[in-house]
Amino acid sequence: MIKVAIAGASGYAGQETLDRVLAHPALELWALGSDTLAGRPADALDPRLGRNGWRSIPRFITNEAALACGADVVFLCLGHEEAASLEPPARGVVVDLSGAHRFADPSVYESWYGFEHPKALGLEQWSYGLPEVSPPTGRLIANPGCYATAVLLALTPIADEIERSGVVVDAMSGMTGAGRGLKPSSHAGTVLENVAPYRVGEHQHAPEIAEALGFPVTLVPHLLPVRRGLLATCFVRSRGVDLREVLEGHYAESHVVTVLPEGVAPELGRIQQTDGAEIGIFEDRLTGITIVICALDNLGKGAAGQAIQNVNVVYGFEETSGLRLSGVLV
Amino acid sequence: MIKVAIAGASGYAGQETLDRVLAHPALELWALGSDTLAGRPADALDPRLGRNGWRSIPRFITNEAALACGADVVFLCLGHEEAASLEPPARGVVVDLSGAHRFADPSVYESWYGFEHPKALGLEQWSYGLPEVSPPTGRLIANPGCYATAVLLALTPIADEIERSGVVVDAMSGMTGAGRGLKPSSHAGTVLENVAPYRVGEHQHAPEIAEALGFPVTLVPHLLPVRRGLLATCFVRSRGVDLREVLEGHYAESHVVTVLPEGVAPELGRIQQTDGAEIGIFEDRLTGITIVICALDNLGKGAAGQAIQNVNVVYGFEETSGLRLSGVLV
Amino acid sequence: MIKVAIAGASGYAGQETLDRVLAHPALELWALGSDTLAGRPADALDPRLGRNGWRSIPRFITNEAALACGADVVFLCLGHEEAASLEPPARGVVVDLSGAHRFADPSVYESWYGFEHPKALGLEQWSYGLPEVSPPTGRLIANPGCYATAVLLALTPIADEIERSGVVVDAMSGMTGAGRGLKPSSHAGTVLENVAPYRVGEHQHAPEIAEALGFPVTLVPHLLPVRRGLLATCFVRSRGVDLREVLEGHYAESHVVTVLPEGVAPELGRIQQTDGAEIGIFEDRLTGITIVICALDNLGKGAAGQAIQNVNVVYGFEETSGLRLSGVLV
Amino acid sequence: MIKVAIAGASGYAGQETLDRVLAHPALELWALGSDTLAGRPADALDPRLGRNGWRSIPRFITNEAALACGADVVFLCLGHEEAASLEPPARGVVVDLSGAHRFADPSVYESWYGFEHPKALGLEQWSYGLPEVSPPTGRLIANPGCYATAVLLALTPIADEIERSGVVVDAMSGMTGAGRGLKPSSHAGTVLENVAPYRVGEHQHAPEIAEALGFPVTLVPHLLPVRRGLLATCFVRSRGVDLREVLEGHYAESHVVTVLPEGVAPELGRIQQTDGAEIGIFEDRLTGITIVICALDNLGKGAAGQAIQNVNVVYGFEETSGLRLSGVLV
Repeated sequence: MIKVAIAGASGYAGQETLDRVLAHPALELWALGSDTLAGRPADALDPRLGRNGWRSIPRFITNEAALACGADVVFLCLGHEEAASLEPPARGVVVDLSGAHRFADPSVYESWYGFEHPKALGLEQWSYGLPEVSPPTGRLIANPGCYATAVLLALTPIADEIERSGVVVDAMSGMTGAGRGLKPSSHAGTVLENVAPYRVGEHQHAPEIAEALGFPVTLVPHLLPVRRGLLATCFVRSRGVDLREVLEGHYAESHVVTVLPEGVAPELGRIQQTDGAEIGIFEDRLTGITIVICALDNLGKGAAGQAIQNVNVVYGFEETSGLRLSGVLV
Repeated sequence: MIKVAIAGASGYAGQETLDRVLAHPALELWALGSDTLAGRPADALDPRLGRNGWRSIPRFITNEAALACGADVVFLCLGHEEAASLEPPARGVVVDLSGAHRFADPSVYESWYGFEHPKALGLEQWSYGLPEVSPPTGRLIANPGCYATAVLLALTPIADEIERSGVVVDAMSGMTGAGRGLKPSSHAGTVLENVAPYRVGEHQHAPEIAEALGFPVTLVPHLLPVRRGLLATCFVRSRGVDLREVLEGHYAESHVVTVLPEGVAPELGRIQQTDGAEIGIFEDRLTGITIVICALDNLGKGAAGQAIQNVNVVYGFEETSGLRLSGVLV
Repeated sequence: MIKVAIAGASGYAGQETLDRVLAHPALELWALGSDTLAGRPADALDPRLGRNGWRSIPRFITNEAALACGADVVFLCLGHEEAASLEPPARGVVVDLSGAHRFADPSVYESWYGFEHPKALGLEQWSYGLPEVSPPTGRLIANPGCYATAVLLALTPIADEIERSGVVVDAMSGMTGAGRGLKPSSHAGTVLENVAPYRVGEHQHAPEIAEALGFPVTLVPHLLPVRRGLLATCFVRSRGVDLREVLEGHYAESHVVTVLPEGVAPELGRIQQTDGAEIGIFEDRLTGITIVICALDNLGKGAAGQAIQNVNVVYGFEETSGLRLSGVLV
Repeated sequence: MIKVAIAGASGYAGQETLDRVLAHPALELWALGSDTLAGRPADALDPRLGRNGWRSIPRFITNEAALACGADVVFLCLGHEEAASLEPPARGVVVDLSGAHRFADPSVYESWYGFEHPKALGLEQWSYGLPEVSPPTGRLIANPGCYATAVLLALTPIADEIERSGVVVDAMSGMTGAGRGLKPSSHAGTVLENVAPYRVGEHQHAPEIAEALGFPVTLVPHLLPVRRGLLATCFVRSRGVDLREVLEGHYAESHVVTVLPEGVAPELGRIQQTDGAEIGIFEDRLTGITIVICALDNLGKGAAGQAIQNVNVVYGFEETSGLRLSGVLV
């Protein structure tokens, strides 16, 4: 069994990673890190963790202790700046779910994340891990952002077949995407029965997408009054190729990403609480623009599910080991 | 007092129109038409209509009777095909809230609405009434669609200042926009905690926008899990002019449409249950694309509020008479 | 493998039952019945059914054909009156998820369900199957109602320890509890941002609870603006015994029902999309009344999960085979 | 014009009070107090406050300055403990929307609010102001709690006609009831698609209700995933009198509280964003218990609307001056 440590296990991404680790046949939970819950039992996070087979889950320790515990795989589920400041363990696989290691160029952190990267020299040792379009290539893995995942699943396979100028992405996310931290924009009195665009034209996933695609897109995110789920509606112009055919070909063997039949649109309801993604393709009647829509769960394929998938790639496990993919819940 | 009849008063648009008529200082409710509620008292629609000062509201009569009752103003709050088949009263103001009279060219109905227009010859007698950008010019007024209103408020004032090719509009609406009729896509079990794109690239408000603007845009609508409110996020490229300045100038005197200060985005929460609209303007850091976002209430400025506003224009009343505009509710 | 047929597979309860059957190690899907989808492939219900391992799911047939196909287990996921009118198969296990076979006394149907039971003579052959408190005793199993399940899980173990007069149950359910049928009260425009009490003091689960408990309670249900989940808040007066102790003892070995620690209240978020239930117990500071709250998913433990559990009981399978119970999703 | 100061104008109750003051024909906004926004213009709270006729709204000052500005009426929209510690102005009307002055007996604060009241001697100078059942009797007015308002509107008129033992109130509130402060239970990720009972059997509105009614009830509150609105479902046993008749009689002249016809239940949708309340009365078929349900908006009749109404009583203004009561929005 592969020993796993999770740093930041009390945040949304951390708790979801824990969920998948507990379900994974080859992973063993070795350490649960959380600076706020250190010293307390696992069910301090969620009463379900004190039940049944889970009664043996280890107590929380500090994040520093979790990193130093000798695990084979460490998941970093921390804030960008906190993750950036950590010295990664000298051996083993490290998957960083924050944005702290997604760019080789440290200047991006100053200009888009608002801090100077404290370990700028080490950035090039990390590889960006998005299994379907850019599998990780080493033991240090930068897990993609949720918006970036949706856009790159939709656009990477067709990047050479579309006009690279004028690509527009309008996106919306359930509010767990904003994390468990307390801030006015995450207050339920603001979120309920509301929809709000935010960081319009300046979201930090925009340079991430540009880096991975090789060209920039215009990205506008909106906060939805739903708990989970993310939709990216991408507007592109084909250079002539049938984009549906390219996407269907690219995902033909995937058990994670599904290209929907003609006329069927992705919707949040079918991918919430799963690690899968759906892609739909449409042609505009008036303008000939092609619309590629990708839906996924921001905490699943957009975070924890993808982190697990990256570990599966590195260890050569089944693509879907530990993932939540089954079922036809209404 | 101007005598008002409402046909289709039991639908969402009809009930909201009734709400404004009751609040309007110069309008008097003369007839309430509804084929399903004909013969029943007003509080069969809503118990509030049996209270206080409203105890004198007339009983429901058939839509045909409402049209024939000699009112000075008739609001048609009916389905597209039903409204298209009606002979409008020979005198008085008629405001059609459906799409049945928005196009002079009858072929649009066959190709976008799915029916042959039964009164094709009369279509050119109607004028499209969007007070801020295209005030009505006669007694027969086609009230704009909700998506079209939001897009035209955002784009008409800048239509000559932007590249006309490649304009993209991603839009989302609260689900009362789909009407009170029972259909699977309006079932709460489908709508709650979900977001679904629909009629992607083929929504009937697209040709309406194209007709009014003079060029087509790519329109993708999404159904939101909120009761009311609509957001249109428009992506345009300026030909050089400062688009914010143009929009601020255009709406400087308006009491209905507000251009928000730099950095402030429209959100549903501030315009729900009102007849106002908010516009925000942003520049994309990576691509230079300008993003113009318009928020309004699909039943307010997107339907009943605008219908009342059109009557105010025709009669020369105050711009905001009978409108819901006040307050700073949280 | 046990062969399974589902009649009414296109409703909410039917689709959820299908979900569990597909996940059950000892059940094999043999027939999918739906009068509205008969002749169409499984993915006409949900595109997920056309994917991966599920490509071999049989086409829909009529409900009558599904009943006659010789399955070992038949799930009836139909309306009350439709299920009441069917002749159950002469052999095999039948689990009726409707209310059509929950009462031995046919007069209940006239007075609470609004129809005369067409097979009144056969009613006594059915047993009421609520595994934790009243396991099924024969091959014909009446699956309990969702509100009844929550109330009986909370109250049956303590029924002999409380004052039987004056028991009050205030309950609320997510709106999938009202089924997939189209009706004004299930329209999203009515449900969103609303809460509405319904069938106040006359819900048909009240006599079901009275029959199972041996005494009546006052039941008021409310419709919530959530997709799934049900909460029953029960107010009882202890005759002196520590009710928490009794409930903890009763559920000590259960993998389905959890009694929460002191001070922790059940909430929908932890049981949605699962077949588990949570119970919390509180004492009122002013009145000494004990409050027992039970949360479950109306489609899980309140319908399909319990139906599967009843089959597990009858066949002697593991208590939790095929159930959705795992995970710590946020 | 009566000069008004609002202390705590940046919280939910403060902003809603501001909304009503701006709409009141006899009140003039004199000072806006907020310690966090002091020095900033009014539109720092809400961009709508910078528009149109509202451009003249005064800047925020500190709460202390607002109290000392010589206003005729001061609204205290502060936390319980903060309001308790303030010295009220020596003249003028003071309406405290917190719980700090609702009890003559200071020991309640220690045992239910968790702090020792710093001005215990002055408590008896305050009167509890619930216009329909207990109008204020002096210049220092304690505005009732939201749950207490709903329960007292439902039960005070029938208090002498029901069994006083065993009264149960199950209540639920939209989450603005928990205030604008940031806390985990108000985080949208927790609230959305969830319902959670809280302070079960120990909510601080329970002693408030007991004090006003003269006998205790069992109160269980639940947090709803809606922005606004509160429902209190009260279970009582009549001593023989027709309770509907008593309630209809009591509210016959009210323009604020409506007793609904038989068979019609209150729902949040009709009272949200208003200062009105609805009451429905039902009989349980099995037990003869009477169910009295009251719906109101927690920020309207449950807070700001009632505060304004109390001022109307004290000054002898129209009952409904400045209130939001009109309309039939869907």
